Amino acid sequence: MSSTENGAEASAREPEASPKVPGRLQPVTLREVAEAAGVSTATVSLVVNRKKDARIAAETRKRVTDAIRTLGYRPNAMAQTLVSGASRFIGLVADGVASTPFAGQIIHGAQDEAWKHGYALLIANTEGNSALEQDAIAMMLQYKVRGILYSRWFHRQADIPSPLRETDFVLVNCFSDEEGARAVVPDEIQGGRSATELLLAHGHRRIAFINAAIPGPATDGRLAGYRQALEDAGISFDPDLVMKACPDQEGGYLATAALLMRGAPAVFCYNDRMAMGLYDGLREQGLSIPGDIAVVGFDNQEAIAAHLRPPLSTVALPHYELGAAGVRMLLGIDPAPGGPAKIHCPAVERASVQVQANA
Amino acid sequence: MSSTENGAEASAREPEASPKVPGRLQPVTLREVAEAAGVSTATVSLVVNRKKDARIAAETRKRVTDAIRTLGYRPNAMAQTLVSGASRFIGLVADGVASTPFAGQIIHGAQDEAWKHGYALLIANTEGNSALEQDAIAMMLQYKVRGILYSRWFHRQADIPSPLRETDFVLVNCFSDEEGARAVVPDEIQGGRSATELLLAHGHRRIAFINAAIPGPATDGRLAGYRQALEDAGISFDPDLVMKACPDQEGGYLATAALLMRGAPAVFCYNDRMAMGLYDGLREQGLSIPGDIAVVGFDNQEAIAAHLRPPLSTVALPHYELGAAGVRMLLGIDPAPGGPAKIHCPAVERASVQVQANA
Repeated sequence: MSSTENGAEASAREPEASPKVPGRLQPVTLREVAEAAGVSTATVSLVVNRKKDARIAAETRKRVTDAIRTLGYRPNAMAQTLVSGASRFIGLVADGVASTPFAGQIIHGAQDEAWKHGYALLIANTEGNSALEQDAIAMMLQYKVRGILYSRWFHRQADIPSPLRETDFVLVNCFSDEEGARAVVPDEIQGGRSATELLLAHGHRRIAFINAAIPGPATDGRLAGYRQALEDAGISFDPDLVMKACPDQEGGYLATAALLMRGAPAVFCYNDRMAMGLYDGLREQGLSIPGDIAVVGFDNQEAIAAHLRPPLSTVALPHYELGAAGVRMLLGIDPAPGGPAKIHCPAVERASVQVQANA
Repeated sequence: MSSTENGAEASAREPEASPKVPGRLQPVTLREVAEAAGVSTATVSLVVNRKKDARIAAETRKRVTDAIRTLGYRPNAMAQTLVSGASRFIGLVADGVASTPFAGQIIHGAQDEAWKHGYALLIANTEGNSALEQDAIAMMLQYKVRGILYSRWFHRQADIPSPLRETDFVLVNCFSDEEGARAVVPDEIQGGRSATELLLAHGHRRIAFINAAIPGPATDGRLAGYRQALEDAGISFDPDLVMKACPDQEGGYLATAALLMRGAPAVFCYNDRMAMGLYDGLREQGLSIPGDIAVVGFDNQEAIAAHLRPPLSTVALPHYELGAAGVRMLLGIDPAPGGPAKIHCPAVERASVQVQANA
């Protein structure tokens, strides 16, 4: 098929004028651009579809692009995709957009990065429904996406859904042991180390850790980071200072008594929600933060961490950066290391820790 | 152009086999379906593109659909869109996906409803950046969306961006005075009434209201609802019981002293974040909730309302339903009333209110 036929075809696909809706602006048509530029619609098509090998005089091309700009013509991206053979979509499968602020931040980062490179995101939210997930991936494949970011709001090992293998994909905030599966995840070990260092830097040496009771990379990684930080500070690890609780406010609250029995003046909580519950428990005991006990959380959760009383020191989960890094890896801009790429979790210091003499 | 040419054209647009990536499944091609069914690729195209006027024997059609199912062939949705002239996309412009849980719930509701009717969502998150918003709408128009839901995470009057007028649109969680602009918004007046009734039902008659200091439909509507509920209960409105504060934890905390000066044993807070800050303020004064003061919030905010100590009675903002109702209105399934359609805000009763004798 010659390039002229390709071009003419895209123009033949111009949609019908929309049914007249009162007050609705009618889109500018290819024909109007052609008339304004004094050329054929086929010529406009060739310019719009950027056919490099089409022989069009520079002066003619300029007349067309000027008319496009002046009239505000919007080329049909569907037709362009077909003509060029390349889709400008990246799919993003997310599982917790409605229930957590985390998935939204992955979307935000992925979209910003995708747009930088001329791609739009096709987003599907599954809220953990695997039938919906299958449908979402099938839909993305039908739209011939450039590739798919498969993300989980909660860092964990993922089973790769089989249809994902029909396109390029990158796992975001999840990973697989499968050979060659590219992934970006938060650096949980570094995050756990940074959280512990926030307390060490203020002179604490007896630091408790309320970890999550559920196993997983966050639970394991944050504990490893806590141990590393203690070791680097020359403090020997005391397993009695590590407790387990449900990773929410209720879990943190219920851990209060166990924490107080250990007499540690500083505590690192697995997440901010747990720290929020612990705040309530400590206050009920008449204890003050950080005067009696310094507290550090994890997540830097929107609407919680900065707004507790006192504001909570924490370590931020880099969801925005996970989304952006996923896109860069998908497009081959960032290389994929042997295993998952680990994204830095920055410490955020607030009033819940303070300088005090060594305990 | 005859329907046969249309069909053949979609098949000619089959993408090249993807570059061989190790472990990558190769998509099934139209040619493979044709071979399996023992028909031409043009015939497969006609079946895939559901050409009603194409003369294909029922038996042949069945051979093709069986082969499609058996092989797992995925038709190119871009080609189908062009051939049918109708896009299966609905655009959703959102402004707070990364910073609030509210936009995510609008997305969730809109997606569920869109999928029910065979549409996929093309979502753009602008985080309030208007240049990005212009680009997002332009992108959606280029993809020939069926229409656009223009949503705001915070209920307010919206300026309709001019390119929106090039397609069908519905304003979601925002509205415009413009003639004919369709919109779905929360029923703030009913919500304010329900919040107040939660306290009235437990015998309170002297009920304070800490409203937001910022003007807008939520501030005005919730106040109107509060007044209606009092009036219905035969309680005269006392303007001295209405205070104003910033709609966040800090605002609620700082309103504590003003609330206590008024001596009201029950308070309705403009939102849950404000109630969370007020909890801190009341506890610092040694007061208990609901024993000394009953508290009701608004929003039913994820990760906050249900997890305060005691859990907070509140009124839910119906973001999921706003998204779903927006899609139904866009597709003409729900009629558009004269003004914005108002969505019910359900009351959620928890332990922060309790039965007590009339104050």
